[in-house]
Amino acid sequence: MELTTLTHENEDGILTVRLNRPDHLNAFTVEMAQELEHTFRSVNDDDSVRAVIVTGNGRAFCAGMDLATEGDNVFGLDGAKRPTLADMADLDDPGIARIRDTGGRVTLAIYACRKPVIAAVNGAAVGIGATMTLPMDARLISTKGRIGFVFGRLGIVPEAASSWFLPRVVGLPKALDLVYRADILDAQSALDAGLAQSVHEPEDLLDAARSLADSWTQGRSPVAVALARQMLYRNAAQEHPTEAHRIDSLAMFYTSIGDGDDGVRAFLEKRPAEFDSKASRMPEFYDEWTRE
Amino acid sequence: MELTTLTHENEDGILTVRLNRPDHLNAFTVEMAQELEHTFRSVNDDDSVRAVIVTGNGRAFCAGMDLATEGDNVFGLDGAKRPTLADMADLDDPGIARIRDTGGRVTLAIYACRKPVIAAVNGAAVGIGATMTLPMDARLISTKGRIGFVFGRLGIVPEAASSWFLPRVVGLPKALDLVYRADILDAQSALDAGLAQSVHEPEDLLDAARSLADSWTQGRSPVAVALARQMLYRNAAQEHPTEAHRIDSLAMFYTSIGDGDDGVRAFLEKRPAEFDSKASRMPEFYDEWTRE
Amino acid sequence: MELTTLTHENEDGILTVRLNRPDHLNAFTVEMAQELEHTFRSVNDDDSVRAVIVTGNGRAFCAGMDLATEGDNVFGLDGAKRPTLADMADLDDPGIARIRDTGGRVTLAIYACRKPVIAAVNGAAVGIGATMTLPMDARLISTKGRIGFVFGRLGIVPEAASSWFLPRVVGLPKALDLVYRADILDAQSALDAGLAQSVHEPEDLLDAARSLADSWTQGRSPVAVALARQMLYRNAAQEHPTEAHRIDSLAMFYTSIGDGDDGVRAFLEKRPAEFDSKASRMPEFYDEWTRE
Repeated sequence: MELTTLTHENEDGILTVRLNRPDHLNAFTVEMAQELEHTFRSVNDDDSVRAVIVTGNGRAFCAGMDLATEGDNVFGLDGAKRPTLADMADLDDPGIARIRDTGGRVTLAIYACRKPVIAAVNGAAVGIGATMTLPMDARLISTKGRIGFVFGRLGIVPEAASSWFLPRVVGLPKALDLVYRADILDAQSALDAGLAQSVHEPEDLLDAARSLADSWTQGRSPVAVALARQMLYRNAAQEHPTEAHRIDSLAMFYTSIGDGDDGVRAFLEKRPAEFDSKASRMPEFYDEWTRE
Repeated sequence: MELTTLTHENEDGILTVRLNRPDHLNAFTVEMAQELEHTFRSVNDDDSVRAVIVTGNGRAFCAGMDLATEGDNVFGLDGAKRPTLADMADLDDPGIARIRDTGGRVTLAIYACRKPVIAAVNGAAVGIGATMTLPMDARLISTKGRIGFVFGRLGIVPEAASSWFLPRVVGLPKALDLVYRADILDAQSALDAGLAQSVHEPEDLLDAARSLADSWTQGRSPVAVALARQMLYRNAAQEHPTEAHRIDSLAMFYTSIGDGDDGVRAFLEKRPAEFDSKASRMPEFYDEWTRE
Repeated sequence: MELTTLTHENEDGILTVRLNRPDHLNAFTVEMAQELEHTFRSVNDDDSVRAVIVTGNGRAFCAGMDLATEGDNVFGLDGAKRPTLADMADLDDPGIARIRDTGGRVTLAIYACRKPVIAAVNGAAVGIGATMTLPMDARLISTKGRIGFVFGRLGIVPEAASSWFLPRVVGLPKALDLVYRADILDAQSALDAGLAQSVHEPEDLLDAARSLADSWTQGRSPVAVALARQMLYRNAAQEHPTEAHRIDSLAMFYTSIGDGDDGVRAFLEKRPAEFDSKASRMPEFYDEWTRE
């Protein structure tokens, strides 16, 4: 896929994805949605990538939906059949493709990603620019960063499955307050709200994100990292810890006969382990477990 | 419904509900439960109300179940058939009406409310007085306020679906501690525990609650606010973000052809939007989605 | 069951369980797993116990799986059939006994326990030593305590249903960070992360744990405590508060005709209540509700 709204740069296994419509404050378009979804789906099979950083080119992170050019695509739905709950049962039905929230296509792809994902919020992250960061595993913010769930000011609702992710990130009372207020928070407020994990000088932001990515993934087993990521997102949402126990047992079995084999030996021998698993080849149960 | 245990006062769209048995510290009765449930069910169809504040008349918020007068109703169940889990499958079965927790009837109605709800805890909120505030979207507390989940001291259990709400408000470890200790917390302790969002001088409490209600709802789309509230409570409790994506898509569709139509236009034209939706008329999917 | 890896000491209703392989830093073995699972299953029927404290003998809490002696049991699974998701449907199938994560057997037993459980982390709690504390209701840590989810360094995954428990204890963003980093935290960092509830001088740790156990259980109804514990863990994980309402109604019914009968009377008469329920005899609905 040729990228026209993003740039990719893989440096030593860390893929930096830059939203790249700086003249439009990286406003989100249908094309950008497709390129982001493609990025996060295809990175799963790219064993040269161990972590992903998302940031913006220019002074914004992402100023939200590009209402000037995309308003008609996204909001001009008058002619569409009025959809029912039953219509949404099969999300792959071409008849509802136009109805599906484009932001959600992106966040579901990030959720399913086998690599840790870090948001480096360099400037304004508003609307979908804010909600797209919620399925990322940390949000680092520059002192010039801003985060705003501003949907309420436009008479619309938060999207991109943010009602699932936001309470997990900041807790329910803060999520309600952020969505109702629909304010744009500065960096310190985002930190205080639990939205951002740390605040950085603009010139230090990407280095901090890379350093975090390293501390999370350097020298680690790609399969074990991918499993741990999906376990934390998926198992915690189950009704009962027994479901986690089923997956744990499988994940521990397959990592034990995989990278854990040398990992345990190396630990006992006090030497660095040699991990050679590839996240492009996950254990047999993985696809069935993570089918959506 | 004639109100005997509450007062209602609608000022500029903010409905203030006062628990009004001041001579009994606003102790909770079956009648009060019915009037509160009725209030929160009927406010959904009252388009003159955009937010609800609940507070107490006199020096208490609500001192808990009125054991003196309601003990026999609520606790004198010896003669009732010993209910099984299967008996609870159909909550509308008249045979189990006497068994159903009255506090839960109230909190389920608050949960289903289409308007933001704020607790203004002016004095002691104990037992059901504490648990009834948990499905409210914020708890503001006066320096004279107190909150206590004291059930354990009476040999009974926390009710009003508080085992569902409390961990969402304060997290599981703090919820366990509050319920096991069964202590009555002062305002500062309630703030530290994450139970209260802010502490106010007694004379400032209601103004602070009204100000918060305004910042949440003034000039906003009633349908978008109602959808966002239900999305945050309901979608976050789903196993998978795909469920949130289904609802997002529907909610975004209907708000886009509703208040979002002028909302987006107004945003582009840098003028205030004109929202004319009514929460009494929710989009088609709403009833099916929120059926309990 | 004769205990070879643990000691038990019941002092005034508080059972202190000590991991007792001090020469091996209390490293976890299959035998220890069996003895811990047995302990937490059997304590439910032992009415002389009102709370459980878990700590370590010697300078460690539990240094993780004993890889030297248990590596072959736990990780030498090459010869086993490669298990599928379907294989895990029936956890009681003897064919998958060898596959099941031993840590999860222990944490599921702690989860199902009718008594509050407190971890007194006296030293290093690493790997299963860390994850086994997550279904306990509080973690008190000595200034010499350490907690580390180090699995990632060995090329394996966090287990013991920790992907279900850890986000409930510290929230999802912190859970991701702890698991990805795989660092060992000192006491202050564990407190800051929300993993530990309080830090104590080594000589004060057990007294603090006993004092907490007393404030949670002394003079309380054993059945009401057991119900409240299970309600907070189980109901909060349900999709809908109506499920909590069903259980509340049953739990309130049975405690009202049980310990609540004198509890309410005593409250009105301003005298101490006399609770005589026994957690070994839970209300009729309990077994069906908590069946796993």
